Amino acid sequence: MIKVDQTSPAPTLEDKFTFGLWTFGWAAQDQFGSATRAHVDTVYAVEQLAERNVYGMTFHDDDLFAFGSTDAERQAEIDRLKGALDATGLKIPMVTTNLFSHPVFKDGGFTSNDRDVRRFAVRKVLRNLDLAAELGAETFVMWGGREGAEYDAAKDIQGALARYREAVNLLSEYVLDQGYSLRFAIEPKPNEPRGDILLPTVGHALGFIETLEHPEMVGLNPEVGHEQMAGLNFTAGIAQALDAGKLFHIDLNGQRGVKFDQDLVFGHGDLQNAFSLVDLLEHGGPNGGQAYTGPRHFDYKPSRTEDPEGVWRSVDANMRMYLLLKERAAAFRADPEVQEALAASKVAEIQQPTLNEGEGYAELLADRSAYEDFDAEAYFDGKGFGFVRLQQLALEHLMGAR
Amino acid sequence: MIKVDQTSPAPTLEDKFTFGLWTFGWAAQDQFGSATRAHVDTVYAVEQLAERNVYGMTFHDDDLFAFGSTDAERQAEIDRLKGALDATGLKIPMVTTNLFSHPVFKDGGFTSNDRDVRRFAVRKVLRNLDLAAELGAETFVMWGGREGAEYDAAKDIQGALARYREAVNLLSEYVLDQGYSLRFAIEPKPNEPRGDILLPTVGHALGFIETLEHPEMVGLNPEVGHEQMAGLNFTAGIAQALDAGKLFHIDLNGQRGVKFDQDLVFGHGDLQNAFSLVDLLEHGGPNGGQAYTGPRHFDYKPSRTEDPEGVWRSVDANMRMYLLLKERAAAFRADPEVQEALAASKVAEIQQPTLNEGEGYAELLADRSAYEDFDAEAYFDGKGFGFVRLQQLALEHLMGAR
Amino acid sequence: MIKVDQTSPAPTLEDKFTFGLWTFGWAAQDQFGSATRAHVDTVYAVEQLAERNVYGMTFHDDDLFAFGSTDAERQAEIDRLKGALDATGLKIPMVTTNLFSHPVFKDGGFTSNDRDVRRFAVRKVLRNLDLAAELGAETFVMWGGREGAEYDAAKDIQGALARYREAVNLLSEYVLDQGYSLRFAIEPKPNEPRGDILLPTVGHALGFIETLEHPEMVGLNPEVGHEQMAGLNFTAGIAQALDAGKLFHIDLNGQRGVKFDQDLVFGHGDLQNAFSLVDLLEHGGPNGGQAYTGPRHFDYKPSRTEDPEGVWRSVDANMRMYLLLKERAAAFRADPEVQEALAASKVAEIQQPTLNEGEGYAELLADRSAYEDFDAEAYFDGKGFGFVRLQQLALEHLMGAR
Amino acid sequence: MIKVDQTSPAPTLEDKFTFGLWTFGWAAQDQFGSATRAHVDTVYAVEQLAERNVYGMTFHDDDLFAFGSTDAERQAEIDRLKGALDATGLKIPMVTTNLFSHPVFKDGGFTSNDRDVRRFAVRKVLRNLDLAAELGAETFVMWGGREGAEYDAAKDIQGALARYREAVNLLSEYVLDQGYSLRFAIEPKPNEPRGDILLPTVGHALGFIETLEHPEMVGLNPEVGHEQMAGLNFTAGIAQALDAGKLFHIDLNGQRGVKFDQDLVFGHGDLQNAFSLVDLLEHGGPNGGQAYTGPRHFDYKPSRTEDPEGVWRSVDANMRMYLLLKERAAAFRADPEVQEALAASKVAEIQQPTLNEGEGYAELLADRSAYEDFDAEAYFDGKGFGFVRLQQLALEHLMGAR
Repeated sequence: MIKVDQTSPAPTLEDKFTFGLWTFGWAAQDQFGSATRAHVDTVYAVEQLAERNVYGMTFHDDDLFAFGSTDAERQAEIDRLKGALDATGLKIPMVTTNLFSHPVFKDGGFTSNDRDVRRFAVRKVLRNLDLAAELGAETFVMWGGREGAEYDAAKDIQGALARYREAVNLLSEYVLDQGYSLRFAIEPKPNEPRGDILLPTVGHALGFIETLEHPEMVGLNPEVGHEQMAGLNFTAGIAQALDAGKLFHIDLNGQRGVKFDQDLVFGHGDLQNAFSLVDLLEHGGPNGGQAYTGPRHFDYKPSRTEDPEGVWRSVDANMRMYLLLKERAAAFRADPEVQEALAASKVAEIQQPTLNEGEGYAELLADRSAYEDFDAEAYFDGKGFGFVRLQQLALEHLMGAR
Repeated sequence: MIKVDQTSPAPTLEDKFTFGLWTFGWAAQDQFGSATRAHVDTVYAVEQLAERNVYGMTFHDDDLFAFGSTDAERQAEIDRLKGALDATGLKIPMVTTNLFSHPVFKDGGFTSNDRDVRRFAVRKVLRNLDLAAELGAETFVMWGGREGAEYDAAKDIQGALARYREAVNLLSEYVLDQGYSLRFAIEPKPNEPRGDILLPTVGHALGFIETLEHPEMVGLNPEVGHEQMAGLNFTAGIAQALDAGKLFHIDLNGQRGVKFDQDLVFGHGDLQNAFSLVDLLEHGGPNGGQAYTGPRHFDYKPSRTEDPEGVWRSVDANMRMYLLLKERAAAFRADPEVQEALAASKVAEIQQPTLNEGEGYAELLADRSAYEDFDAEAYFDGKGFGFVRLQQLALEHLMGAR
Repeated sequence: MIKVDQTSPAPTLEDKFTFGLWTFGWAAQDQFGSATRAHVDTVYAVEQLAERNVYGMTFHDDDLFAFGSTDAERQAEIDRLKGALDATGLKIPMVTTNLFSHPVFKDGGFTSNDRDVRRFAVRKVLRNLDLAAELGAETFVMWGGREGAEYDAAKDIQGALARYREAVNLLSEYVLDQGYSLRFAIEPKPNEPRGDILLPTVGHALGFIETLEHPEMVGLNPEVGHEQMAGLNFTAGIAQALDAGKLFHIDLNGQRGVKFDQDLVFGHGDLQNAFSLVDLLEHGGPNGGQAYTGPRHFDYKPSRTEDPEGVWRSVDANMRMYLLLKERAAAFRADPEVQEALAASKVAEIQQPTLNEGEGYAELLADRSAYEDFDAEAYFDGKGFGFVRLQQLALEHLMGAR
Repeated sequence: MIKVDQTSPAPTLEDKFTFGLWTFGWAAQDQFGSATRAHVDTVYAVEQLAERNVYGMTFHDDDLFAFGSTDAERQAEIDRLKGALDATGLKIPMVTTNLFSHPVFKDGGFTSNDRDVRRFAVRKVLRNLDLAAELGAETFVMWGGREGAEYDAAKDIQGALARYREAVNLLSEYVLDQGYSLRFAIEPKPNEPRGDILLPTVGHALGFIETLEHPEMVGLNPEVGHEQMAGLNFTAGIAQALDAGKLFHIDLNGQRGVKFDQDLVFGHGDLQNAFSLVDLLEHGGPNGGQAYTGPRHFDYKPSRTEDPEGVWRSVDANMRMYLLLKERAAAFRADPEVQEALAASKVAEIQQPTLNEGEGYAELLADRSAYEDFDAEAYFDGKGFGFVRLQQLALEHLMGAR
């Protein structure tokens, strides 16, 4: 066992922290270099996680048993996993299917131009749905990493969306018919490994879901770094997903700007956005409570420079970052000066409808104070919003300076 | 009159080219410098456009009459415009409202934290809807350029989306009740002038529309540069908008990468994406015809270095770029070698459903050829998609080399 | 007087904080909207700064007296400024010339294609050099905001670099001949307002300086946001500038990623990079002391949402962020666990030459332990660098969690 | 042999096209998937290239013989290569060393925090210099892909630059002493695989070179996509490299914006920048001739979707794009309307010194026409530069429309 970080705040099962098997298990082979670390055994991994009060583990089929395994090989790995779960109490809240690593998926799975590949991809997922249900998973993530193109002429996007829809509709029907209590969560990403990927952002996936036969079964699994690779504000995207009732799962990690997918430890990228995210998840609910109660799932990669000890320290770091940010968000909310600054900035006034109760456009048109007598010029050199002060207060809480 | 570019291909009314009054009318004041050009008179502008076989002009209320105009001043400008339209036959297919320039909108219009501003904003739009209907516009664009924030704590995004929805719902009801034949088109943008803007991409707007009371009345007005500012593929975004039946209007211009909003002439930015866009609009329909039949609207800014002659040459350049790309797209589609390459790349195979007719998951599960007997390994060092060849053919047509 | 933030840590004159007159003085007119604030009087500004223990103020000629002022108008403004400086003790450590706002500079100043403009630009700078010297400034900043192009064919870059060089050489000669104790500092920026700007990064400016006649008189004035607009690590850029002996001045502000120039308060953008920057400036010297002893100059814009009170709070916020980061950097350096982690990561080992004393390539070639007997395979699954742990410690100090 | 593209324009030896062995030889393993193609034999590769009138091939040591090869294995591969070169006449104009793939280099080569690794890295390069000289290479490229960091505290950048300098100085001395006619060319890259890489842009490398003991021996090997990953204009960067006399070699490929390193075929990314680049290389010399006469080196990756036939078609595509762009650039230069537009835009006027012959600052100060009597206001609404027209003409030539 590698030593666990015992410093307070320490994780508890109630924090519902989960990790992908492919995260600490990444052998650190990248585009420009070979692996720097050995394979991590599944049972050992489960033990390490349990030791740390991690709530659950997740995996792609190919993480657990290699692509092309015989049924016996596959079952042996599943049985080893089950044994470890039984021994530790660790859960498998989410399962996903790898439709991106093997050469057969070089042009995608559900939306490969090659119809035979599409049929194979759907079959691979169907098989894995059974396993997900068997292991008690509640969420089935779909990251379509190879669904896309490098060249505009190479992919009929409308056709590809139709095929994506066909696949999700069929899978939804299967889950319903089997009586599985699984929901699907689409994970958007703008690019890499493809030049452009289908459903590149939280928004595109939200729009797509509404075109499905069972939109209620399909939500999102947004990943911090993926939105930030498009220069988008992750917290704002999560808020829109919550507004649409579609935050089914979440991938926490870190990214430092618009570049390749870094998959850093959560909070090790854009720290202030990580702070506002935790604040939203923990205090952004309608009554100020948790806005999201599902697993806090870390989907990151321990840097290629790290050895096994560094890997497990990075596991600890993810949880510690979350807990430190949670403490700071609570203090931020509780600070009377912050409350006063929020009021001065009218932040809560946005919750108040623009119309009076019972008012329609006719009444609004009749209200001279709203337009004819409204003093728009008062907003010049006055009626400031005080946002900079509020931001400063937020950062001071983030920095533990208040 | 400034000399018109007569070179073939020349615009015709059938091309349905339209320009915003604020485009050639931009006085070229920017963040770092004062205006380099004088105000362009509306009547003169209409005449210049008509001379060029431009189909229509569009405007924000404040483009036509200054913010705070008296009713008489406002009406005088409207009458001058109408006179020019009557004299030339130019149409006004789209109108929009400026909720971003005046200090009162410094925190937005529909989603300002300040409720009084929100009421004023809705009133300003209601008044402009009447004018839009009066002028025969079919589309009412909403670019929420100031709807956003610089700081995560400054805006309750869920609240802001609720207010955005409230505003669009009220406006939709108004249009329905008045019997106006107007549809709304939301124009997404990721940032600038706000640090982050609500509904930052085509996808986010698509997702938002589905939460409205009258989603059928609301579509998109995507702008080339705005999507490209997020590093997204514009053609792919337009394809998703078409898939959702939501391409109500389009803003054509040019952008050179992830940076400030450049608003270059159409095609003067990412040329290959402009080529695939025109190909999609002109040949991406279900039967190979036009996928979009509305106005080809240019929303660009003549560079600040240009004088009035340069301004009108830039107007010509927009249309000429579109027509040249249209010619090349037609030649690309007609080339037998391209047809052969498309077939080799299985581009059309994506239109074919993944399931056989009448097939469901049960039949698919029973098809051993789809999985158990499928030869995934054949995709290693074989079964290439030939996408690079296809891309090369596309670029050779774009370059007029075939 | 607007109330000063008295919370500890509070600025002192020893902190050498300086502000541009155009920063708090920005009337908040941007690309998409008109001014939201009134002009700030220079004398009032000097008093506000002095009240806050600000060390100095800086300005462009056009900030102090409008472009085209008569000699009398110009002198009147200079005299008012001098009076305020005398009354308060505030310094003018840096002066700069505006070669970007007026239409005459629409294609640049030193590198406009129009030779007459170039001559005018040099004259405008020469005049301002006299004023800078008269006011005791030590640094003359050159931000060539309009030196660039939107279109590749529009600017002969080699020619433009030659003209830039000609201008700087002439100005250097003038300063030398006048016996002024001024040094020049070039401020790089990748784009905005031009599509691409000459000398886009710290690196390009360093390279250019070496081609000058008096390279010793010319250094850099790097700005946080400008480098980050190119996705570059600002701290790393500053380190290279220090390595070259060229950090003559610095512009502190905040930026949230690759987008338009945000000019936020220092630290309100990429917080972790701001932390490492302050750590470098304060503790990165050869003996662990200050690596940079010049003014800590804030070049930011108070958000357009702010009124005068918000403006002055934003002035306070810049200094407070710097001081809080300085405190945390000191604690980071002093923490024994950090020292241990730095050692484990061999961070200081990079200071040790790769060659032994007296060793040349011949001796290195003869050292079998360096190659033939070197165990490269030990770096697989071992010999980790522990960088994630170090990063976690840094962030915990930044968050005040240790 | 895979069929060669015979369409005109076809490559000749005079075009000096060269390819890296690792380009067509890339097995297409990436961050998210395993190899889709088999190893390409070196001799076969040389034959394929020769068949296509390719001038030369380049390689990293590890491309030719695996890391850790015995002397005998290494020599066998070298001998096979020499045999193929003799048989075909293909040249090896450039060689480079792989300091980035093996785990030992996980924190870099010349600038690893681990001094033992640095010594090993220098030895690996020394050995490869001998081979480069033996094969007649003129250029030795150094891409420091792992020289960098993910975390600001993990790397003392000033120390790292000192070590980089130490290594290059030692290598320069070695080359001089051996009498090799090799020059070094540094290849900048902003990020990937490291979070931030040392010497991230053309500019940073130019600045660094001036700090070396033998700056005359060290120049640049800029790569199209690497600069564009930082949102920089590649043509402008090359122009600055030419201005500094440092364009020793060039890596041609394609990139579609600020994202991961795509390594597309040359011209398959930003087409208009590729056009201006070829125009600069072929016509940007002082007398309008070639500004760069070295190898046109393609450093790209055939897309992972391609099989061996697609790979060799992509080789053809690179050369064909270059030749088509070269034809268009020649036509652009020769077009009288372009000449007239260039004159109207005063593009050549930038070559004219700003000062008159014999003029110094004293004479300039005495010239009232330059300042006191200069009519700056004439640049408002007049004296436009006509850049949009020029851009339109450039694009029409690029599109073969003139």
